[in-house]
Formats: sequence, C-alpha cells, structure tokens
Amino acid sequence: LTTKLPAVGTTVFTRMSALAAEHGAVNLGQGFPDFGCDPALIDAVDTAMRAGHNQYPLMSGVPALRQAIVDKIAALYGARYDVNAEITVTAGASQAIMTSILCCVHPGDEVIVIEPAYDCYLPAIALAGGVPVAVEMEVGEQGYVVPWAKVAAAVSPRTRLIIVNSPHNPTGSILSAADLRALADIVRGTDILLLSDEVYEHMVFDGQLHESLCRHPELAERAFVVSSFGKTYHVTGWKVGYVAAPAPLMTEFRKVHQYNVFTVNTPMQHGIAHFMGDPQPYVQLPAFYQRKRDLFRDGLAGTRFTLLPADGTYFQCVRYDGISSILEADFAAWLATEIKVAAIPVSAFYSSGRESGIVRFCFAKKDETLRLALDRLARI
Amino acid sequence: LTTKLPAVGTTVFTRMSALAAEHGAVNLGQGFPDFGCDPALIDAVDTAMRAGHNQYPLMSGVPALRQAIVDKIAALYGARYDVNAEITVTAGASQAIMTSILCCVHPGDEVIVIEPAYDCYLPAIALAGGVPVAVEMEVGEQGYVVPWAKVAAAVSPRTRLIIVNSPHNPTGSILSAADLRALADIVRGTDILLLSDEVYEHMVFDGQLHESLCRHPELAERAFVVSSFGKTYHVTGWKVGYVAAPAPLMTEFRKVHQYNVFTVNTPMQHGIAHFMGDPQPYVQLPAFYQRKRDLFRDGLAGTRFTLLPADGTYFQCVRYDGISSILEADFAAWLATEIKVAAIPVSAFYSSGRESGIVRFCFAKKDETLRLALDRLARI
Ligand SMILES: CSCCC(=O)C(=O)O
Ligand SMILES: CSCCC(=O)C(=O)O
Repeated sequence: LTTKLPAVGTTVFTRMSALAAEHGAVNLGQGFPDFGCDPALIDAVDTAMRAGHNQYPLMSGVPALRQAIVDKIAALYGARYDVNAEITVTAGASQAIMTSILCCVHPGDEVIVIEPAYDCYLPAIALAGGVPVAVEMEVGEQGYVVPWAKVAAAVSPRTRLIIVNSPHNPTGSILSAADLRALADIVRGTDILLLSDEVYEHMVFDGQLHESLCRHPELAERAFVVSSFGKTYHVTGWKVGYVAAPAPLMTEFRKVHQYNVFTVNTPMQHGIAHFMGDPQPYVQLPAFYQRKRDLFRDGLAGTRFTLLPADGTYFQCVRYDGISSILEADFAAWLATEIKVAAIPVSAFYSSGRESGIVRFCFAKKDETLRLALDRLARI
Repeated sequence: LTTKLPAVGTTVFTRMSALAAEHGAVNLGQGFPDFGCDPALIDAVDTAMRAGHNQYPLMSGVPALRQAIVDKIAALYGARYDVNAEITVTAGASQAIMTSILCCVHPGDEVIVIEPAYDCYLPAIALAGGVPVAVEMEVGEQGYVVPWAKVAAAVSPRTRLIIVNSPHNPTGSILSAADLRALADIVRGTDILLLSDEVYEHMVFDGQLHESLCRHPELAERAFVVSSFGKTYHVTGWKVGYVAAPAPLMTEFRKVHQYNVFTVNTPMQHGIAHFMGDPQPYVQLPAFYQRKRDLFRDGLAGTRFTLLPADGTYFQCVRYDGISSILEADFAAWLATEIKVAAIPVSAFYSSGRESGIVRFCFAKKDETLRLALDRLARI
C-alpha cells in the first residue's frame, strides 16, 4: 500500500493535546473552548430529536438552517445568496474545505497557499493532484501581513485557486479592505477561483470589521466562503459548518459533497437553525473573546514573551526568542512537559517548517484556566 | 470551471424523494425508516450533550464507541480488532467509503465494482483518478449472484481494489461463505485490497448468517469493512458509521480522514456508545425487518409484480416486465406520479444503465405505510 500522502503524520493538534494530557499541562494548544455552550442550543437539538428529525435531511442541508445562514450573511455583509442553489451545510469546515478543493482542482493545477497556513489545505491539494505554491506572510511591527506583490508574482497560467483565511489561524491577523482590493487586482480578468476560510468570522476585535469575501461582489462571484458553527457556538465537536458559493461553483461542490458525506447530522442542523433565530450569541462574541484576549495579554505582559498583535480568532501568538534559540517544536514540548502549558509551534503551519521563534496559544478557555496558565508561564 | 465529475447529477434518491413529495406518493424509494428510533438512544445523546461532551473528540472516535464496536465485531464475527489502531468512527458510511477509496486508489489504478452497485463508489473512484472495471451480477431463479469467474477475469496487474457489498443494495442478495471462498481464491497472492460495504449487516433474514469479511481472516487482513449506525438504529440522519481495517490500512485511511472531516459528532458518538451496551436492538433487527419484508411480499403476491428473493437489507426488488416494456426510470416516474408509490429504478445502479425491468422498494416503513402502498400497487 503506497501512501497517497507521504508528508502526513498525526496532526500537531492531536499530538500536543496528547502530550498535554500525559503531563497534566493546561491545554492552550488545540483550538477549542473548555467551557460549555448555551443550554438553549442543547434544548433545541433535543427538541429536534424528540420531534423525529432523525432521518436524512436534504443533501444541501435543512432548509431552515440554509435560510438562517442566508439571512445572517445578508444582515452582516449585505450579500444575497440563493437559499437553494448557493448554500450547503457541511460536516464541519474541514469537510467544506476538502470538498471545495477536490471539486475544482484538477491534477497539475496550482493552488496558492499563504503561509503560515492551517494544516488541512495541503493534504487536500495533494489528494486532488494539485501543486501547492506557498507564499509566506511577512512579520514585522504590525504583526503578520500578506505580501500581495509576492502573491501576484506567484500566479501562473496554471493557477486555479488562491486560499485566503481571515481571521487568520494561527497568526490572529485579519485582512483589511485594502488587502481585498489587492486580491481583487490579482484575480481580475483571470479564471482563478478563491477559497476563503472564515471560520473565525465572529471573532474580530477592537471594533474592527470582518472583511468577509461576501462583502465584495467582485471576489464573492468566484469564491467558496467557508464558516463553522462549532467555533461560533462553542461546540467544536458538533461538526456543522457551511459553504456559500455562487451557483456554478456550488453545483460542482455538491457533486463531490453528495458522495463524500451525502448529508449532515439532522437534529444538530435543526437545533442550530432554531438557535440562530437570536443573533445575540454571535453579535456578542467579539466582546466575549476580546475580554479573554485582554486578560491573557495583560497576564503575559510581565513575562519575557513578546506579544504579537491579535486582531481576530481565539489565538495569541508570542515570540520567545529573547529566551532561547531552540526549535519551536522543542520549545512547545518543553512548555508542555516542564512548564505544564501546551502551545502549538507556528513552524507546523509552514510547508518549509520555517522557524520564527513563535508559538500559538488558544485563549478560548475559562478565566480560571487562563489564570492557571499565566501563573505557570510567569515562572519562566 | 471544468467539472471533475462529468457523469454526476443529483442522486436518484434525492430526485425520487422530491418527486414523491411533489405528487403525494408513498415514498418507498430512498432507503430510510419513516418511524422513530428508540427514545433511550435520544436520551443517551441528550445526556452526553448536557454532560458537556460537545468539543472535538479524538480523531479516531470516542474511545467508548470504538470499544463497543470492537466488542460487537468480536461477539458476532469472532475477530479481534485493535481499539486504538484499527477502528475509526466516520461521518456516516458514505464518508467511510469515499475516504477508503481516496486513501488507497492512485491515478490509473483499477477498481472492480460489482453491479448493480450503490451510487457512491464510482464518483469516489473518479475523484481518486482510478479506473472502474464493472462486472455485472447475474439474475436468475435464485435472484442475483456474483459471477466470480468474471470477477477473476477482470483482474489485471493494475487492479488495486475490489468493492463488495453484502447485504446488497439494491438487490437484497447476500454473499455466502462459498462466495467469500471464491473471492479469497481471486485475491490470494496478490496485493489487491478489499472494500466491504456492510451497512445492512444486521438485516439478514430466514436464519441466515451475515458473512462479514471480519469473519474471514484471509480477507479481513486486506479489507476496509464499513458499517453504519444510521441503518441499524433507525437514525439515518445522524451520520455516524465506522470503518474497521488492519493497522497498515487504517494508517492510510486516517491520513485522509483527519483532513476530510477531522472528527465526528461527539454527543452522537457518546450516545451510541452508551446505547450499544445493550445488544438487543441489533440482535432483534433481523426479526423486526423480516416481518416487514413478509408483510410487503405477502401484499404483493396478488399483483402482477414478480418478487425477487430478498435475503437481506430493507429493500425488495420486483420485476414488472409482465406489465410493460417501458424504461425503468419511466416506470418509476409513472409509479410515483400516477400510482403514488415511489420506487428506485435499478438501472440507476448500473454504469451501463442496463435495463432489466426491475425496480427497488424500501420496506423500512410503518406497517400502515406499507399497507397504503400495497393498496395502491394492487390497483395496477
Ligand atoms: C481541527 S484541529 C483543532 C482546532 C484548530 O483548528 C486549531 O487548533 O487550529
Ligand atoms: C444515501 S441515499 C439514501 C439511502 C440509500 O442508501 C438508498 O436508498 O440506497
């Protein structure tokens, strides 16, 4: 059995979570909340199950959930997606991303990936027979920025897809309207498609705006836009997300989707649809996570870590290069085993394995968890 | 955007369900129960959600569920799978099948598909860049049988995988121990892998045995064995299944799985694990569905349909060739719109579109639903 994915091992998230469990470390590695969801959301799923919503839903998703998604996108980003032809509910954002890539990338097609990048893009490109073309973000005083001139230079006649991700995992940076104008300049007049990973769309801080590609018709007309209810509603284990895309793209997406998972958990879809009737949970999310970010940043201020800007997501990147020049993975292992706080080495998000002396902490944790981690980190 | 799957439209199941809804037909097309699941199963999921099991589970699945699967396979088929290395919980059987094919079929590899065949195999092979090689079952007095000599003749040096399915959708036939010996003779000494779709494993009638590949070490050592809780527990919309495979195969499976869906719904996994503590629901399933099969067959006895044998699954195939020589799809459309009973044309399960004057009914329905359908069918 010859492997299809020679570069793939167990994900860094699984490995660091296992290490954290083994050593009794506070797990600020893998991104998931250690607090519960709103009981009203559980009630809504329970009601759906008892009402008998337990058989296959429509392949595209439960109509009420697709309608709620359309309404949310219209309210927040002013775009009108067609509820039947342009929204598909997915088994989490990973499946949306894998399926988007599988449906449009042909063998030999190039896909531009801006790194550091979430780890599921490259294996999906490899399975499609595509060729990843990495462009590295630059990191300076303002934090991580996308060098659009380098992205433009990476475009070739074989470029089929550019993947963007904002708010950005792992860096916590966000794309601005100017970034999206630069992206529009690159794709205008080409047949390059876009895949926009926006799973942290409701976590943008300091009054800034999430620049969803949905806001920008020139980009949206060629984009798969992916989001995740797991992140928004504190239920990462429910595995419900969605993709929004213009009908011609969605037609191709669904051809793969219907044979990959066919459909997505019915009672969870009904429960989330009901819960979305109240916009408050996602409207309040920026303030909720901004407070946790600030608690965590304030706590780190007295330590020898240098804080990078954190404009979005529930991640905080820090430099430790004042402390040592060891590899990020070794530093993260030492943090987990000796200091007993788990983090993720940012080198894991580069295909080159680039070392920048930076690790990522997840602050989607109870205040007491963050305080315990801060106490331990202060001992360094 | 050039399609990756030119042959793919909307599945026949979705189309027939839509037609049934439009015309108020009794839907015996798409395979799903119209009755509820055991409330104890819903209670178990509810308990899991309220206990806080709402974040990412382990990539391979919740340990208690994997253990319950291992125990069930050991009890029923006498095989011992390793709970950590050889079982992965999937987002339904479709995702298990797609992922099995994507992880082992390289571009140009041949995959032998025995037809009629469930409709998700071919698109998965196409996405992997594989070449499907169809071998058609023969249908005679004893119903559908696999012509193993033709399967053997279809093997080439490029054969990477043979897909088998028992109990078989759409025909309701089952593989015997003699069938599996014939299969073993074909693969012995080759590096051909097997994918065994056993989602109807607990629906085998008249005291016959389900010949799981797990029972046969010579086959199991090279097989991905797929099953589905949706079928077994009357919750097709929950989308939880699993794959069992020897560790070297499972290693490759998980490389794709972790980037396709990453993980599967946590509370459903906990709920099903708890519910599996009682084997009665699947132990009683053959008798439960055999009674419905007999009710349906008895009701059709007076009509002009010829009943084919139905040894397993919740499907009953019937010939209508005494009535007319119209195409199966046209006959099924007429049944749905005029007689108001939906069925699935078996031609949809052949890559050649072969016509045999046979349609498939699903009898996973309340007795009153079956009686209503029988009343209508008797009018023909
Ligand atoms: C799917 S792995 C865990 C969550 C995550 O997205 C991350 O930690 O970056
Ligand atoms: C996944 S489609 C519906 C169910 C099914 O398997 C069938 O009808 O054959």
